[in-house]
Amino acid sequence: MGQITYREAGVDIDAGDALVDRIKPLAAATRIPEVLGDVGGFAGLCAVPDGVDQPVLVSGTDGVGTKLKIAFATGKHDTIGVDLVGMCVNDVITTGARPLFFLDYFGTGKLALGVGEAVIKGIAGACAESGCALLGGETAELPGMYADGEYDLAGFAVGVVSKPRIVDGRRVVVGDRLLALASSGLHSNGYSLARKVLLEAMALSLDDRPAELGGATLGDALLTPTRLYARAVRAVLDGGVDVRAMCHVTGGGLPGNLPRVLPDGLGARLTRLPERSGLLSMLARRVEEAELRRVFNLGVGFVFVVPPADVSRVVELLPAEDVLELGEIVEMDAATPFEERVVFAET
Amino acid sequence: MGQITYREAGVDIDAGDALVDRIKPLAAATRIPEVLGDVGGFAGLCAVPDGVDQPVLVSGTDGVGTKLKIAFATGKHDTIGVDLVGMCVNDVITTGARPLFFLDYFGTGKLALGVGEAVIKGIAGACAESGCALLGGETAELPGMYADGEYDLAGFAVGVVSKPRIVDGRRVVVGDRLLALASSGLHSNGYSLARKVLLEAMALSLDDRPAELGGATLGDALLTPTRLYARAVRAVLDGGVDVRAMCHVTGGGLPGNLPRVLPDGLGARLTRLPERSGLLSMLARRVEEAELRRVFNLGVGFVFVVPPADVSRVVELLPAEDVLELGEIVEMDAATPFEERVVFAET
Repeated sequence: MGQITYREAGVDIDAGDALVDRIKPLAAATRIPEVLGDVGGFAGLCAVPDGVDQPVLVSGTDGVGTKLKIAFATGKHDTIGVDLVGMCVNDVITTGARPLFFLDYFGTGKLALGVGEAVIKGIAGACAESGCALLGGETAELPGMYADGEYDLAGFAVGVVSKPRIVDGRRVVVGDRLLALASSGLHSNGYSLARKVLLEAMALSLDDRPAELGGATLGDALLTPTRLYARAVRAVLDGGVDVRAMCHVTGGGLPGNLPRVLPDGLGARLTRLPERSGLLSMLARRVEEAELRRVFNLGVGFVFVVPPADVSRVVELLPAEDVLELGEIVEMDAATPFEERVVFAET
Repeated sequence: MGQITYREAGVDIDAGDALVDRIKPLAAATRIPEVLGDVGGFAGLCAVPDGVDQPVLVSGTDGVGTKLKIAFATGKHDTIGVDLVGMCVNDVITTGARPLFFLDYFGTGKLALGVGEAVIKGIAGACAESGCALLGGETAELPGMYADGEYDLAGFAVGVVSKPRIVDGRRVVVGDRLLALASSGLHSNGYSLARKVLLEAMALSLDDRPAELGGATLGDALLTPTRLYARAVRAVLDGGVDVRAMCHVTGGGLPGNLPRVLPDGLGARLTRLPERSGLLSMLARRVEEAELRRVFNLGVGFVFVVPPADVSRVVELLPAEDVLELGEIVEMDAATPFEERVVFAET
């Protein structure tokens, strides 16, 4: 009887080791002073930063959904990692936390070294941009679990905030203003619907350049990476703004996310939204308005809730951002269903 | 032109919400005093425990590999979550850290509520057993990415240790003893090879009851969950043992893992290993010895390195465990290749 090896069973330990070697310098470039030791042991070590009174750890995990399918189809793997970091870190910072570190899980059938490296490069770049260390990760080869050339990604972010400085919406009151930071596109939500509408119902190809996209291919527009809000949020918090709530507009859209940070008895009345263009205006042709609102971010990636007196300060602190006043906080019957606590009243 | 909904695109937000509702009480049961608020916001919050001098966060991520395929084939989904927690938490505790919290990523094509609930139940039970809170998670429906009824899992664990108490192998010296805690079976490594050998080369079925398994089905033997070592490790550390290194025997086996915690110039000489039985003895018939050693744990799930004087104390502190003295630390040329730093010298 012949002997059977791990490699014959579809797992190439050497390829995994080679990827680890390529990741090391990428991860090293994201190092923050709190990190101890190197990636490669059993676990990643990061000190709780000095000078944080009553430190609270804030953590979140997410994936990038079927935006992956666009990366597979176009062969462009260097930005999907930005989405992974954005999806996780943009959640963590809504609490006022400073991002500390990130870990990734990369699951695939057969490891393609170049693809894995491109993905991790995207992750590492986004970690650096967000000020957090890429502290570890797992690359798993699961023969027979994924179609050829496909993979799934999961990300995990941890930040730290001083307990008295947690931002949780508790202090939001009627009359507070909602300020939007623009999204860069669909970010990483609603891709199953977007793909069905654009690629099936409209029968477009990823190489097409529809008029609405101003010369870009559909593939590139769909791959536009999620914006990273960590720096903007840090500038606003450090700038002394009385931020009462923050919201990352992710799966569920504005109606599914804004109410998560509003106290009972309060709702959001939106009187202005970003002008619809690009992919969103294409999608609006085949998706009902209510569905569009609860699946896509409508051009709003992140929302601050601040008192009226602080609105101009936020705008000043973010000269490079497109800050839009969406509307204000209003009273609302506490029995109002969750998603109806956001009222669309654009004029 | 007809309008298209997210549900038609394969994503059922309501099913996701229903699973979240079922997870809430499971997660609540794992709560530790440091946890703030409930699962369901943008992120999970956990205070750094009081009284830890110079707290260092220790984090790890892992998956369970193609052990998943056994869960799919048998329809038993209530223990694979134990493996997920074990793979991550058993890594984190090698540093001396106390596990604090865990997050999971569950990616699937079409969410099956009962399956998702069974998986999370396994995760939550293992978190409780390990003393860490299930602080959050992501359930992602990715239509077309996974075969029907399949899913992938990624786990993330964070623990905390006081900087002066980090266990990192630095103090290991010649003559220190290696003490093994028994594994429960293959844990969650080498399943692609095990499946190839058992199900293809030997053409066994998961319902078969080979003599070596003492009456158990092959499916049940393969699904035996990874042992959780957090309590045993805590007992040894709190019992005042001078633990100089700890090793979780995971992918790479003893030769791939023990050297990770040994200083340069030292190696491990193993004079005794657990008796081979069950799956391992079946696998040994078709896998070469060197390959067996670098893929499977050989019955050793976790290793302590302690001075000779502390051996009996470890045995005393772990009355319920099968503690086996494997061998000792020896001098070794610093140029010795990584995996050759473990010498198999069983008598």
